[in-house]
Amino acid sequence: MAEAKKEVRLVILVKFKEDATPENIEEAITEYAKLVDVIPSMNSFHWGNDESEKVNLHLHEGYTHIFESSFDSIEGVQEYEDHPDHAVFEKLLLSRVEKLLAFTYEPTIVDLQK
Amino acid sequence: MAEAKKEVRLVILVKFKEDATPENIEEAITEYAKLVDVIPSMNSFHWGNDESEKVNLHLHEGYTHIFESSFDSIEGVQEYEDHPDHAVFEKLLLSRVEKLLAFTYEPTIVDLQK
Repeated sequence: MAEAKKEVRLVILVKFKEDATPENIEEAITEYAKLVDVIPSMNSFHWGNDESEKVNLHLHEGYTHIFESSFDSIEGVQEYEDHPDHAVFEKLLLSRVEKLLAFTYEPTIVDLQK
Repeated sequence: MAEAKKEVRLVILVKFKEDATPENIEEAITEYAKLVDVIPSMNSFHWGNDESEKVNLHLHEGYTHIFESSFDSIEGVQEYEDHPDHAVFEKLLLSRVEKLLAFTYEPTIVDLQK
């Protein structure tokens, strides 16, 4: 039986500042995505913006965007946190957001037979 | 060229109440997972608890657990929201959490060549 590959995910929720332009936001997303290329422990990255209003869910606490990246281990997340390019990106992102939430977890997949 | 399959994800962050027992929490997770079997539009489900402390990240805003489920469309999320079994589960979950955040999004995958 193959052993399940360990995965650690980092979820970041942000609320961009009211005065952040679409270009400012796009640049932040692009700079985040570029980290996949320069930080070896970062395996993947995706992002999205909140669409909860479409299903009448109003519990997003004002957060506008989500970023999710994946790593092989907690040590991989630490490597990402400590990387100098992450520090440069973090400074850019923090200058453009009103608030930020970070959640680190190892997903336990529950995929029952349908 | 194959068209990328559309996916919509629902991320739920919760902070369980201080007096929620491990059994209370486990039951909530199990009941959530069971919805995959009964709600046709719900494709997958996984969960995890916050491990940000291990990387000295203290930005999880007190949220203790994450639940992520996926759907083919926004309509699929609506079907889930409207399902009677979801209503039963929601009542159970809300009775055990201090706060809850819900974020709905279509992931845009940025997976540059390494």
